[in-house]
Amino acid sequence: MTFTKISEIGEFGLIEKISAIASQTESQMNSLKKGIGDDCAILEFSDTEYQVVTTDLLIEQIHFDLLTTPMEHLGAKAISVNVSDICAMNALPTYAVVSIALSEKLSVEMVESLYKGMSNAAKEYGLAIVGGDTSASTAGLVISVTIVGKVKKEKVARRSTAKPGDVVCVSGVLGGSHAGLKVLMRERKLMLDNLKEDGSVDENYRPEIADYQDAVSRHLLPKARLDIVRLFERRGIVPTAMIDISDGLASEIKHICKESKTGAIIEENKFPIMSHARHVADEFEEEATTYALYGGEDYELLFTLSPEDAEKLQETDDVKIIGEIKPEAYGVVMLDMFAREIDLRKVTGYQHFAQPSDESEADEDVWGEDDDF
Amino acid sequence: MTFTKISEIGEFGLIEKISAIASQTESQMNSLKKGIGDDCAILEFSDTEYQVVTTDLLIEQIHFDLLTTPMEHLGAKAISVNVSDICAMNALPTYAVVSIALSEKLSVEMVESLYKGMSNAAKEYGLAIVGGDTSASTAGLVISVTIVGKVKKEKVARRSTAKPGDVVCVSGVLGGSHAGLKVLMRERKLMLDNLKEDGSVDENYRPEIADYQDAVSRHLLPKARLDIVRLFERRGIVPTAMIDISDGLASEIKHICKESKTGAIIEENKFPIMSHARHVADEFEEEATTYALYGGEDYELLFTLSPEDAEKLQETDDVKIIGEIKPEAYGVVMLDMFAREIDLRKVTGYQHFAQPSDESEADEDVWGEDDDF
Repeated sequence: MTFTKISEIGEFGLIEKISAIASQTESQMNSLKKGIGDDCAILEFSDTEYQVVTTDLLIEQIHFDLLTTPMEHLGAKAISVNVSDICAMNALPTYAVVSIALSEKLSVEMVESLYKGMSNAAKEYGLAIVGGDTSASTAGLVISVTIVGKVKKEKVARRSTAKPGDVVCVSGVLGGSHAGLKVLMRERKLMLDNLKEDGSVDENYRPEIADYQDAVSRHLLPKARLDIVRLFERRGIVPTAMIDISDGLASEIKHICKESKTGAIIEENKFPIMSHARHVADEFEEEATTYALYGGEDYELLFTLSPEDAEKLQETDDVKIIGEIKPEAYGVVMLDMFAREIDLRKVTGYQHFAQPSDESEADEDVWGEDDDF
Repeated sequence: MTFTKISEIGEFGLIEKISAIASQTESQMNSLKKGIGDDCAILEFSDTEYQVVTTDLLIEQIHFDLLTTPMEHLGAKAISVNVSDICAMNALPTYAVVSIALSEKLSVEMVESLYKGMSNAAKEYGLAIVGGDTSASTAGLVISVTIVGKVKKEKVARRSTAKPGDVVCVSGVLGGSHAGLKVLMRERKLMLDNLKEDGSVDENYRPEIADYQDAVSRHLLPKARLDIVRLFERRGIVPTAMIDISDGLASEIKHICKESKTGAIIEENKFPIMSHARHVADEFEEEATTYALYGGEDYELLFTLSPEDAEKLQETDDVKIIGEIKPEAYGVVMLDMFAREIDLRKVTGYQHFAQPSDESEADEDVWGEDDDF
């Protein structure tokens, strides 16, 4: 049998092959509206509602490092990143199932902290954890979360339905998560440098993360923007397209344009950058814009609105208009600070900006990393 | 912080702690009928139907060994074991989400085989794979499957609703999966003994599994008994309680009795033992009955019927009556070949029967191994 390395065809090549095989099963289900290819699968639930479903796998040393991640935060994040996918459909979460595989180095208390984090986050989002599976693990901790949600049919938001003339909006602030990761990785290195022979950390070592707390919190404890979904409901707004920002603004706007068969222009000077992200970027002599564009894990919502719906958001500080959907031939363009037009489709990803000396970022180039198919 | 080893409180202790925390979220969902503690969680779907959901995590070296497991079989098994949980609720599967984490030693072709196995199994059971997640893995292959099904409200089968006087039935034949595992482990050892320096297997080595094909197939490629659920439908039968046999007959009958607050008597001479399981047990100088009682992974259905419903099954060869539900005080009793009454609650599990020299069986004692909570 031929042995083709996965790295030869890359993550998207692999996902394409997997999707082609898995999609052969879609005809089994009359009520399937949309399977592989959005933040969630969309299923007919009743005459008036769709059910949406999403799943994520979190793996130690690929998605998190226990040295810099408190268990309770990790539990909350595992729930939040899935709820964020539900929000991206303009849906509300209803229930979750959670599986974990545990290595021997974890204590009962650590597992309890993990579940407290999940349980508290679930309560915050109004969803029930209804079941799961536990297993031993030969390697590190593995967490698998599946969340099911629901949405009225006329309100579901897909990636594929943006139209030229729609305005492009983003919730909250960007770049914080990646800035937080940079700080944590620096601290991790200091912590390891200060390890004594018995495995404990030298008592003179003091973590220096207080000045960057917003950024660190954003990385360790991101919140799904369910409040934005509720804001839409209150104001009678239905986004024409929506996606959550898990991989970075550049990647997400390209997804919307590709699926909607449109172009877009977004303006760098309108990006809402977290102020702590700017401080961190200054310290590392980098650009906070690149954190926003390629850093990922901010879990804000990127969405498009008809001009009429956009007017209903005028009084909201927490949403910024950053651009406009254009016809496909226009390209996916960023207007930078110097009014230069940069075609984001020709910039191939974060590797342009990665610091090769930073271990954490090696993960960003691993195929398959946190990609739904 | 205190560090309590997970092994100190054991798998059930851990699951109890996790369940206590997770169940705090159940009040978030009005439509939740039954969360943690059955084969599936049960959720209100419509006036007439419940939705049921189950999830399983399969981890390399804990649940399978790639040396003895073809990828396509592994894919099919990952689907089948979850469909089996859906069947145990007397429900039909509708859709699945699948996540995988892949290590670098896997090829594109192997991943395609895995998905072909899943896709073919899904088609056989009439369910759609609607989405998933892929990730790199620092350790071995990880597969997480979540399956959602549905069932008419008046037909749902729980573990907790057996009544004294009900007959205890089992589908198909038992003991085959464990017998198949024994054969595969013996072959695995031979294969490793015949490995040459370049990593290939010596050309004089011939696997000797043809004589045990039924048992090996049962282990590698178990089928969920959806045909039994359909048989119930055709004959107007509703089991008073049901569970799938993933851990062995002894464990499953104890689950039904514990949840239903009943006792039971089952008769060894009525157990339907697979004939290949008997051959294998003879060769290993063991008892095929212990494979059926404690071997697990047969994925047959154990269920209880009212005497009236039992009559409707008279002409079915593929279901055997093996005992009767009794009041709780009676105990959970097995009447053995010598008419001795053995209280199954006092026999604590497979470790009584394990061969310490057999690596594969070390897994059976690992806490948390394939336990839904």
